[in-house]
Amino acid sequence: MRVDGPVALTIAGSDSSGGAGIQADLKTFAAHGCYGTSVITALTAQNTVGVQGVHACPPEFVAKQITSVLDDLDVRAIKTGMLYDAETVKAVAGLLKTRFSSELSSPLPLVCDPVCVSTSGHSLLHEDAIEVLISQLFPLSTLITPNKSEAELLLSHFGDSTPIHDLEAMLSSAQKLLSLGPKAVLLKGGHHSITMPDIVRIRQKNGCPKIIKHDLPSDNMEILLVGAPNYDDIELVVDVLYQIDGSLTLFVRPWIQSTSTHGTGCTLSSAITSELAKGIPLEQAVDNATMYTYHGIQSATPMGRGYGPLNHFHRFTTILIPQPTPANPYPFTHMLIESNAKEWKEYVEHDFVRQLGKGTLDRAHFIHFVKSVLTNDILHPEMLIVFLRQDYHYLKYYARAYALMPQRLLAAKSTTFGQIDSCTKTISNVLHEIGNHKAFCATFGITEQDLETTNEAGATIAYGAYIIDIGLQGDSTRLMMALMACLLGYGEVGLWLKKQSTLPDTWVKLEDNPYRHWMEEYAGEMYQGAVRIGLDALEACAVADPPSAVRFKEWQAVWAKCTRLEKGFWDMAMELRG
Amino acid sequence: MRVDGPVALTIAGSDSSGGAGIQADLKTFAAHGCYGTSVITALTAQNTVGVQGVHACPPEFVAKQITSVLDDLDVRAIKTGMLYDAETVKAVAGLLKTRFSSELSSPLPLVCDPVCVSTSGHSLLHEDAIEVLISQLFPLSTLITPNKSEAELLLSHFGDSTPIHDLEAMLSSAQKLLSLGPKAVLLKGGHHSITMPDIVRIRQKNGCPKIIKHDLPSDNMEILLVGAPNYDDIELVVDVLYQIDGSLTLFVRPWIQSTSTHGTGCTLSSAITSELAKGIPLEQAVDNATMYTYHGIQSATPMGRGYGPLNHFHRFTTILIPQPTPANPYPFTHMLIESNAKEWKEYVEHDFVRQLGKGTLDRAHFIHFVKSVLTNDILHPEMLIVFLRQDYHYLKYYARAYALMPQRLLAAKSTTFGQIDSCTKTISNVLHEIGNHKAFCATFGITEQDLETTNEAGATIAYGAYIIDIGLQGDSTRLMMALMACLLGYGEVGLWLKKQSTLPDTWVKLEDNPYRHWMEEYAGEMYQGAVRIGLDALEACAVADPPSAVRFKEWQAVWAKCTRLEKGFWDMAMELRG
Repeated sequence: MRVDGPVALTIAGSDSSGGAGIQADLKTFAAHGCYGTSVITALTAQNTVGVQGVHACPPEFVAKQITSVLDDLDVRAIKTGMLYDAETVKAVAGLLKTRFSSELSSPLPLVCDPVCVSTSGHSLLHEDAIEVLISQLFPLSTLITPNKSEAELLLSHFGDSTPIHDLEAMLSSAQKLLSLGPKAVLLKGGHHSITMPDIVRIRQKNGCPKIIKHDLPSDNMEILLVGAPNYDDIELVVDVLYQIDGSLTLFVRPWIQSTSTHGTGCTLSSAITSELAKGIPLEQAVDNATMYTYHGIQSATPMGRGYGPLNHFHRFTTILIPQPTPANPYPFTHMLIESNAKEWKEYVEHDFVRQLGKGTLDRAHFIHFVKSVLTNDILHPEMLIVFLRQDYHYLKYYARAYALMPQRLLAAKSTTFGQIDSCTKTISNVLHEIGNHKAFCATFGITEQDLETTNEAGATIAYGAYIIDIGLQGDSTRLMMALMACLLGYGEVGLWLKKQSTLPDTWVKLEDNPYRHWMEEYAGEMYQGAVRIGLDALEACAVADPPSAVRFKEWQAVWAKCTRLEKGFWDMAMELRG
Repeated sequence: MRVDGPVALTIAGSDSSGGAGIQADLKTFAAHGCYGTSVITALTAQNTVGVQGVHACPPEFVAKQITSVLDDLDVRAIKTGMLYDAETVKAVAGLLKTRFSSELSSPLPLVCDPVCVSTSGHSLLHEDAIEVLISQLFPLSTLITPNKSEAELLLSHFGDSTPIHDLEAMLSSAQKLLSLGPKAVLLKGGHHSITMPDIVRIRQKNGCPKIIKHDLPSDNMEILLVGAPNYDDIELVVDVLYQIDGSLTLFVRPWIQSTSTHGTGCTLSSAITSELAKGIPLEQAVDNATMYTYHGIQSATPMGRGYGPLNHFHRFTTILIPQPTPANPYPFTHMLIESNAKEWKEYVEHDFVRQLGKGTLDRAHFIHFVKSVLTNDILHPEMLIVFLRQDYHYLKYYARAYALMPQRLLAAKSTTFGQIDSCTKTISNVLHEIGNHKAFCATFGITEQDLETTNEAGATIAYGAYIIDIGLQGDSTRLMMALMACLLGYGEVGLWLKKQSTLPDTWVKLEDNPYRHWMEEYAGEMYQGAVRIGLDALEACAVADPPSAVRFKEWQAVWAKCTRLEKGFWDMAMELRG
């Protein structure tokens, strides 16, 4: 997830306890994938119990902060929260008006949350600021988002002291508030007790406003409602959206019994601002934002001694695999290898491999056969022959497992034919490898007939049967882990030996090394090309559907098992089993 | 992800542009799963180009904010950033000292980032504050995190004006800084040009300090390094951690060419604070935090006209399925059903189902057979018989598909035997369903022999073969989607008919309805018990390994296809095909 745009700006107070104000706004912006900026109008010493103090910022410094942000960053939407006093409202409104009317920029979406009083009852807006708010800021606003008491306070300034006691009153109040100048009003519910019959009644009376319901019984979902309360008895929260084009929308959801409501208003308005910054139309923005806020309350754990904050990050989960960097272009494979580095090293730098590199195969040493096996300091031809014979059998299993891959890929929805093509090409590569293998064996006097009639060793069957089993289980990603452990392992062995050969005073012998062909095959262009395709496929697999910890563990288990089985294969050769 | 604890506190300045200061800290806390609180010492009007102004907050109000937070919330770690002037440093240090030495609480981890100058060169700490910082705050600090120029400034106060020009100088400076009182010093690199040979030299000279490397060539990863620069030529960043117990750790990683470095210091220190708040030991905390910051720079997109911010949320991805709520305890199934609501409704409320409910099967109407078929207003016995005969065949496919499930579950690492047990019990339930089916058919004069010899219709083969195919493809989750569409669909049909039967003036007929037994079977306790198990399994599947958009689409495709095939099954009966 890249939280580096679009940019959203909040102009509001600071809440030291982190649940409301610019802190709630920044958390909400982030949760919506927006880059958050913030202009602070006043500091509060505050916690879940109440507001212990307020320090106002000079209005000209508020303006200075706004200028710093707007002059440099491509802000796509703005919200205002606590503006504290008349001078600050004037400074903010004045600056935004100039900006909005300048020919250089078209007006930005502006959400005005007319914060007047904190949840705990502390006044957050001076009495004399209300009129300025209405006359100067509302006309610039795309949306204002008062709650019941804020709406009552705003309307009382026009001599209207009707309490907003029910849904009917909410509708008429929203309409009155709209006449104060903003392009839309979202009058928030939550302080009334409303049930579905109230909404049905309103609907009949008010020319069928649009109703958007969430988390309420839907048609044809009886199986999900067993034991649920009667539909008509569910206590509801209704938010009313009135837009300047006359459209009216009710947002309806269950009321939640919770003390985690500190900063609900800030969160909702900054969630709407985030959605507007992304270019989402107002009604949809409000719909998404109300549900985000609802889940934030629903999933919060009580915190502090009073009204605790919402859980702003309920939609987030962390990804396990880091982003690729120039220094680490294969982060997933890197993690896989690192997850069992010790066994991987034992496999890649196996004594068998070292002795291939040394070319310490001397037929004259046959006399010391038993001794050499015990001390392991010489790779005896017999060891290689055991290996070659068994590897021939193994390659058959390996090709068969690869042949299951196109089947798995074709079964998945997201597969391209290109992937299947590269996969079937890999089967051809394995056949090519078998061809090389046979030719190499012939130099040791082993015929194809010999190879075919050699009994399969336990280690061969174990490894071969395991990858076929994984293939038949049918999960394409786990089959890929099994195949890659082998493909990448031999590629690593090839490059490791090659690297060792370039070191000063290398122990690797190239001249007259009877195994040089084998070594160079795996370090060569063709095999390494296949490794490259394999690496890309592995990384793509992790990027397309980032694994959870559960799935990574499953993948890692297959990878680790194959690493062990590969090592076991070489152990077998060294011990002349088979 | 629940970001509601542990609580971390930052005491620092505000950066209006959101990339540094408490804004960077809050973003970093959130990215680490901590709940962020913030005490503001000063406001800056700032952007990526520079600092345009500073408004200091009265020291006593800084103290008041700290008190508000610590009195109410269970803070687990604190960091300080820009403290601006001597009076503020005194206020913060004095208050923390009192808190830390009170018998009620043991000292909290305190990370002091001695912010002196902004990246853009603006002074953020008064000259006279440095001495107070050293004498009063350092002794309380778990860790101080100066960069090169801050370290030079701090040491110059003791007459030491040696420039920190290389790794050697970093080590000795870190040791000197440690003697100023903190429990550990992290001296940050990034301003030097260091390569691996420098580190090897240091290591030989300084008694082998511990070295933690990241994103650098590791052993046995040659395959990942094709085309990478020579190890010894890579330009490195080294951070030096010196702890009071004498342990020395170097954190080494590649240097990144980037302009996205605004707020790097704030981000690193708050990342360390987050890790300490979670109880992670210091060295590991620093290691994690340096890599978090490194990836933050690496994955950032340029923003603004100067030094842009880091990408703080590079580890995050959003989850598709909302959290369960009391009103929506099955959010995943809810999403599935909603994703093709129209087709689901056509299936569940199919005319065939309605007519079963009406019991409008009248043998006397046989005469109107053709007409009734055309107008579809009567469910003719022939239709039911077509359905029953084909459903018998379908149930065989269904049981076979279910029989593949234990195989799939056993192949997965995370399966419990309980899951497999409940799965095999479902097969017994299907056999029971087949038994009922046969008994019900007998009441229509259809014998088992008849059922067995009935030809399978196209719709039966289509549906049956599809679920077997999905099962053989081997992905257990997609097989589950296929099986659940059928299990849940019939459960919904049963409950929907039952609900209709309770409405006033219901069209459902229970008395003398020859299909009553069939209807009641699906609404009954036994079948609904199976539905409940299915729902729980579906939800558990989405919780254990939350699907990405890619995987949800794959699952949804199987679900939608089965819904269509179910509907096709009833269409077939209505058209007397088969």
